[in-house]
Amino acid sequence: MKIIDFRVRPPLKGFLDMVMYSNGERRDRFTRQLGLPPAPSAQKHSMPMLLAEMKAAGVVYGVITARNSGFLGSVTNEDVGAIVKEHPGLFCGIAAIDPTQRKRAIETIDQAMAAGFLGVTIEPGAYPVPIYADDRNLYPIYAHLEDRDIPAVIMTGGNAGPDLSYSNPIQLDRVAADFPGLRIVVSHGNWPWVSEILHVAFRRANVYLSPDMYLYNMPGMDDYLKAANGFLADRFIYASAYPLTPLEAYAAWFRKLPLSPENMQKCVYGNAARLLGVNP
Amino acid sequence: MKIIDFRVRPPLKGFLDMVMYSNGERRDRFTRQLGLPPAPSAQKHSMPMLLAEMKAAGVVYGVITARNSGFLGSVTNEDVGAIVKEHPGLFCGIAAIDPTQRKRAIETIDQAMAAGFLGVTIEPGAYPVPIYADDRNLYPIYAHLEDRDIPAVIMTGGNAGPDLSYSNPIQLDRVAADFPGLRIVVSHGNWPWVSEILHVAFRRANVYLSPDMYLYNMPGMDDYLKAANGFLADRFIYASAYPLTPLEAYAAWFRKLPLSPENMQKCVYGNAARLLGVNP
Amino acid sequence: MKIIDFRVRPPLKGFLDMVMYSNGERRDRFTRQLGLPPAPSAQKHSMPMLLAEMKAAGVVYGVITARNSGFLGSVTNEDVGAIVKEHPGLFCGIAAIDPTQRKRAIETIDQAMAAGFLGVTIEPGAYPVPIYADDRNLYPIYAHLEDRDIPAVIMTGGNAGPDLSYSNPIQLDRVAADFPGLRIVVSHGNWPWVSEILHVAFRRANVYLSPDMYLYNMPGMDDYLKAANGFLADRFIYASAYPLTPLEAYAAWFRKLPLSPENMQKCVYGNAARLLGVNP
Repeated sequence: MKIIDFRVRPPLKGFLDMVMYSNGERRDRFTRQLGLPPAPSAQKHSMPMLLAEMKAAGVVYGVITARNSGFLGSVTNEDVGAIVKEHPGLFCGIAAIDPTQRKRAIETIDQAMAAGFLGVTIEPGAYPVPIYADDRNLYPIYAHLEDRDIPAVIMTGGNAGPDLSYSNPIQLDRVAADFPGLRIVVSHGNWPWVSEILHVAFRRANVYLSPDMYLYNMPGMDDYLKAANGFLADRFIYASAYPLTPLEAYAAWFRKLPLSPENMQKCVYGNAARLLGVNP
Repeated sequence: MKIIDFRVRPPLKGFLDMVMYSNGERRDRFTRQLGLPPAPSAQKHSMPMLLAEMKAAGVVYGVITARNSGFLGSVTNEDVGAIVKEHPGLFCGIAAIDPTQRKRAIETIDQAMAAGFLGVTIEPGAYPVPIYADDRNLYPIYAHLEDRDIPAVIMTGGNAGPDLSYSNPIQLDRVAADFPGLRIVVSHGNWPWVSEILHVAFRRANVYLSPDMYLYNMPGMDDYLKAANGFLADRFIYASAYPLTPLEAYAAWFRKLPLSPENMQKCVYGNAARLLGVNP
Repeated sequence: MKIIDFRVRPPLKGFLDMVMYSNGERRDRFTRQLGLPPAPSAQKHSMPMLLAEMKAAGVVYGVITARNSGFLGSVTNEDVGAIVKEHPGLFCGIAAIDPTQRKRAIETIDQAMAAGFLGVTIEPGAYPVPIYADDRNLYPIYAHLEDRDIPAVIMTGGNAGPDLSYSNPIQLDRVAADFPGLRIVVSHGNWPWVSEILHVAFRRANVYLSPDMYLYNMPGMDDYLKAANGFLADRFIYASAYPLTPLEAYAAWFRKLPLSPENMQKCVYGNAARLLGVNP
């Protein structure tokens, strides 16, 4: 069973400056808190080990997301683009923007898409000056993405900002309603607001959920899975959030989840392939 | 086992102009998304078929609610009153109001109750200009209802308004606290805020819950049922939300839910009969 | 198995003026609504009976919290201090403050700690003039507590204020983030916002949860317990909320919960002992 992993951060370039690599102890504590063993490749900062772990896990393709963040650290589109180019066929890139400069952000998007990126990430609460997902300054950007059918990967779950208000799905629901043609992948599954985001996804056909590590034995897991076996079957997307979880152990665990074979296939491959327009 | 169905919209008069009938494809997609087959009577717009389905489902009485809405479509009190009169003993009506005209709303309520309606519906987020449940313009209306012991059927769950904020139970909790003598039936069970509305109902003895179609295999179902078997046994109310679910399949499914025989009886008949003062 | 009960209100002095004793009928209704029998000692206002019930339940130590409240009634630090002194080795006190008088509140804290109290309670929504947990007037007080490593017992769950907004964990999350050195015990487990407070506790290592009576067969129980067996094992704290639950029946029920023996021990004794610096 081939897997597309929608959230992978390889131990290369700018990623090494992010907290998840620069503070390995904190990362490993987080991983163990979930009940998983840290990935050897993450601890050694070894790309060859990561490639071997991908193979062992059945991950044929990884989505690498750039980041413009204060407290989480940043990684540039240039770095992501270079990593993708250096490993042909194995990865794609999702570009980050600076939401405070509207025209510049639009240029960044256009340049990134021309350079082969397959989507744009919006991380409202993680920007150097945190904002909410329905901040008016994001609206021209959402409009630009909707008009060009570019997927938006929005992080409004988990440690999405300075406090729990930044993962409140009310703001995201407004975005999904105001841009019904914008395909939105909700990273971290908007956890912990599980019932609420499931309602949003139930109501808005343009919302995809990718709970990644926040699926792993967390409150709400059963509800996520029930949805993935039901109305959300075509919009539930696998991700490991590596290096926060190890590729092999996470994939082995995921494969045993109570999803029908057809829905399992959609979750780990089909939905992401269709969304991104790839066939790895 | 006789059933009172607290939310039925027959295929007659103004209901046929509402989205749930005028866009049958959308309705059927919604029903199938829940995992249920569309009702033949809904697809054919056939009242005789609906009456037969009621009989087959054991539904002896249906509550028909008028609606003054923008995005959901409207149905007048006159239409509801006429449907009730044309099928003696089978239905009762819940009247809608225009919340923007206080004196007119009060007159509407008084006229409707004089004409045999058994309650008033408030759908804050669905009004042509959406408001929240604790909007100050609703307070004179709540006061009028409380003073006359008229049940209020408040829709603050599901697609209750333009976005998820309209189902936030904080506003409803304020209403329940400020009008402790007002009996409130919360349509759609305030889904998806399940734990939160259960707290509201735990704390406020005047709050009744009717999750209707949002009970059906949805996140939170087990918590609703635990409450219906516990502190909420006298305030949990059956409803199908027909035509969004089919009467027979929904009733057949409901009868198998893990409620004690006594609580099942209260949920499907006793609580609604007591609340409405009927004995069909 | 020795138990430290983090929330006990004995039938003595000012407690008898609180609603939970002055309106025994209301209290017993609440207890029965949970599915538990009222405690004989609570009904008889008998301290000797309570001491016997503690012994029978295995409760070797009880935490008695003062209260400065409007709608819940108040009990002074003086009363709590006197009860603690009259039963040496059996109880400790948590002091209440008046948040509207900053300098006076600081003095109260210093005097209480000098007199042997082991922490300070903050009940934002229950104060005579309700405020939110992140009210600016509380910030100098939180700072004072953090600087002196005094535990804060914050009640933002259950009937925490006039309405459901007072238990919204967003405000508490801000406090936990802004005072990372302040050890916070969240009384009533911030119920009913279970998933959300679990995220707060997952993210903030200074947050302890004590769901007390709101654990008892309530929505979210399984998620609380999963956390208590996982990332929250060192920060989950047992409490009965006596007289709202009976000591023996509650402890007997709790002992059978699916916690590992090691985590059970931490929850009922170890975590509270370490937090308070006691060894009863």
